[in-house]
Amino acid sequence: MLIPIERGAREPVTKQIVEYIRRAIEAGRLGAGTKLDPIRVLARELGVNRETVAGAYHELEILGLTESTVGRGTFVLPRPDPAPAAAAVGGDGGRPFEPVLSRSVTAALGVSVLRAPHAVPAGVVHFDRLVPDASLVPRDEFRKALNRALLKGGSQLYEYGDPRGLERLRRALVERLTRSGVECDADDVLITAGSTQAFAIVARLFCDPGDTVVVESPTYPWACAALVSLGLHVSAVPVGNQGLDLDRLEAVLARGGVRLIYTMPTFHNPLGISTDLSHRRRLLELAARYAVPVIEDDFEKDLRLRGRGAPPLRALDTRGQVIYVSTFSKALFPAARVGWLVAPRRITDAALSVKRMMDITSSGLLQAGLAQFLKEGSYDRHLRRVVRELAQRLTAAETALEEFLPPGSHFVRPEGGYLIWVTLPETIDSYTLLTEVERAGAVYAPGQIFYPDARRSSALRLCVSQASVEDIQRGVRVLGEVARAALPRRAGRATTRQAATVQV
Amino acid sequence: MLIPIERGAREPVTKQIVEYIRRAIEAGRLGAGTKLDPIRVLARELGVNRETVAGAYHELEILGLTESTVGRGTFVLPRPDPAPAAAAVGGDGGRPFEPVLSRSVTAALGVSVLRAPHAVPAGVVHFDRLVPDASLVPRDEFRKALNRALLKGGSQLYEYGDPRGLERLRRALVERLTRSGVECDADDVLITAGSTQAFAIVARLFCDPGDTVVVESPTYPWACAALVSLGLHVSAVPVGNQGLDLDRLEAVLARGGVRLIYTMPTFHNPLGISTDLSHRRRLLELAARYAVPVIEDDFEKDLRLRGRGAPPLRALDTRGQVIYVSTFSKALFPAARVGWLVAPRRITDAALSVKRMMDITSSGLLQAGLAQFLKEGSYDRHLRRVVRELAQRLTAAETALEEFLPPGSHFVRPEGGYLIWVTLPETIDSYTLLTEVERAGAVYAPGQIFYPDARRSSALRLCVSQASVEDIQRGVRVLGEVARAALPRRAGRATTRQAATVQV
Repeated sequence: MLIPIERGAREPVTKQIVEYIRRAIEAGRLGAGTKLDPIRVLARELGVNRETVAGAYHELEILGLTESTVGRGTFVLPRPDPAPAAAAVGGDGGRPFEPVLSRSVTAALGVSVLRAPHAVPAGVVHFDRLVPDASLVPRDEFRKALNRALLKGGSQLYEYGDPRGLERLRRALVERLTRSGVECDADDVLITAGSTQAFAIVARLFCDPGDTVVVESPTYPWACAALVSLGLHVSAVPVGNQGLDLDRLEAVLARGGVRLIYTMPTFHNPLGISTDLSHRRRLLELAARYAVPVIEDDFEKDLRLRGRGAPPLRALDTRGQVIYVSTFSKALFPAARVGWLVAPRRITDAALSVKRMMDITSSGLLQAGLAQFLKEGSYDRHLRRVVRELAQRLTAAETALEEFLPPGSHFVRPEGGYLIWVTLPETIDSYTLLTEVERAGAVYAPGQIFYPDARRSSALRLCVSQASVEDIQRGVRVLGEVARAALPRRAGRATTRQAATVQV
Repeated sequence: MLIPIERGAREPVTKQIVEYIRRAIEAGRLGAGTKLDPIRVLARELGVNRETVAGAYHELEILGLTESTVGRGTFVLPRPDPAPAAAAVGGDGGRPFEPVLSRSVTAALGVSVLRAPHAVPAGVVHFDRLVPDASLVPRDEFRKALNRALLKGGSQLYEYGDPRGLERLRRALVERLTRSGVECDADDVLITAGSTQAFAIVARLFCDPGDTVVVESPTYPWACAALVSLGLHVSAVPVGNQGLDLDRLEAVLARGGVRLIYTMPTFHNPLGISTDLSHRRRLLELAARYAVPVIEDDFEKDLRLRGRGAPPLRALDTRGQVIYVSTFSKALFPAARVGWLVAPRRITDAALSVKRMMDITSSGLLQAGLAQFLKEGSYDRHLRRVVRELAQRLTAAETALEEFLPPGSHFVRPEGGYLIWVTLPETIDSYTLLTEVERAGAVYAPGQIFYPDARRSSALRLCVSQASVEDIQRGVRVLGEVARAALPRRAGRATTRQAATVQV
């Protein structure tokens, strides 16, 4: 034990040792039953004589904090009282350091989505988080696949490993990408810590502070926070039921200064929409004309529930301009922290260097487990099960929305994924309504957090992955009842019917 | 299978399907034995009629790429020839996109350490990489601990988890930190993807582009690359056998504009030195006077081999100004990608938000495995074994250095870790010497890469973790012989004896 001792201080060394250990025990840092260093060991480590340490140990015993047994040593006793607050920083007379955070981080901390979530009472139906249902995770199959991979993998799995990511995982992804229409080789793929890291890498790859990135409005809110934290400007282009408004996009691109476009053409978050082939081709033409690279975020690619989709932008891109990112976090589970980026090799090579400076490489252990899990067919089996289950939940939610939403509401039927974008009558502010809905028994993500300008919104995002069919029905009824009660006496029917939306 | 089809193109749809699948098979993306989608499935997915797909499958069979069996389906045959190069980007007539990388990333790519390492012939003794000996990793113990943790942990381990990191791992770290003299609570700890990510987080937390960070010279070269990639300026302050030159540091701080100091007071990389208590206190006083936060990188903290060290800066810091970072990568293995950052809570809270934007959180699965591994005492057992082994290797290396180095050389005896900083006679440039030494049978890290100004250096870093005692003796002899041969006829004895160094 290394105790910071100040020689020649007013406080004798014995007392300094006692106080350090006392604080550690009272704060729970040294738990009951912990054996303290033998006297001779601690004396040697601290460069003091044994009597000093023996005196300190004796005093700790008198204080009722430890118990010494001849021949066994000195042990920490259970804490007598609730621990007092930890010693305040600066307690030794130093003025506490006042950290001044960087302007970029300070700006990002101001983005509303970063506010700490509050605890929600038990029994409330969770429509709020875009995360998979942990109860559907094939835990045992994954654990066994991981075991087999670690047994087979040898010692090199424990090293830093291939900086692009484990080759057999990249090869397995290439086969799946081929089936999605994306032509690439294993060296075009970079394994990342989820698609969040892939996004952060691409932003740094193309943008310097002060540069502008086009995002959709509404969009994934953490993307905006990440861009702002890098000192980048966000230019929001509206996205509707047909996708990004391409005329508005062209107007923004024509002004110049845009270095990157971030888009989710398939199962958009939060809208749930997917764009068609002609929209994808026109978007690529625009990006090509202005020579602006595109990040295609395909975060729920394996969760198609209905219809047949258009190929990803990356599959249609003949110029090498689209950087495709995806993840196992939404269809399997997030704790693997494995996502990937697919781009022409020279872009992947540069991305690799940026990743090197962020965290060197992703864990080869979990990559090996995932590669094995894919190879054994467990991932495909899991997908079949999860797609069946999500389809039931989505149908239940849609039926309940049609039944319970007040007139003037509408929602989008997604072709895949597990979110539904619901628009309430426009007199309602979904952000303020949330407090009442939560009290009545359900929580959702209010529309406002998805708009880069944090505008008032009557829309909200429901995720159906965290609730059973029964909970979904109950939650939607609660939402509908509270929304209905919040309407003025004579609610208007303001909105018009749109493609892929259901008017209530 | 989603094949990007262009209707109305010169090439008929059948031909487009054939070509896509042909390229995928020839490039190995669809391996031998892969079953193609049934005709009706692919026809539905692509929105074409079945005859079109049947025609394409027939042509693939004629090309000798697939084999169809009635009732079973169509399967990919083994590749007849070596695969031709993958289809060039832009092959469909589009001009290839010319990516323009950001200025910051371009500048970082120019930092010399980022050049791709070349392959080294087998049999060469590896003194070059600061990585643990993978053969000493207790693989089976770790795998079993991971298994027990996953069996016990339930489904929440598969979720995003606590953004600060798994609480029981943080508590285990707090107990270890307490034994190092660091007083902190579990909420002061943030689990990161290795200490590299911790460093990157702290740099972004305190610095905006254009700001200056003090680093030691010589220092860990990737730190400089990471800072440059963030648009930061690096101010190099010399570090010698007593640590950072504090007079020079004060001169730099007095000029203003410094936002962060990066230091490795214990088992410095590449010098191997550790600073004493009074140097640590004076460094903290300076940092306090100029209100500049300090990153303390304690990457090999658990590998003390000799003597007793001073407490970490974090233990001596009464103002809350030191951000302590460490990792399991050097003492255990890097593939867990688990490091940590310790700071007063308000700094850790902000760091948490920056991590959120980088990769959300670190894998709870591996954290649970590590927590279990620590709890079972396996980590301490591993440390005892590894410390014993490294002590033998270091002693062997030191003995061989004394015997084989040419006169005028000297080296530092480290108190822990596994690197030795060797200074050859100053007429020798260790960077150019490396080619010859490699040809003769050993590789090391030349001194030049550790200097932020990439200056010529006669010094080099030897790591003894990748080689057996016999290999170490052989490798050092090779180094000594090549260095001796490179000396001018009458070599001077230029250097003076310094504390903790051995003059040869």
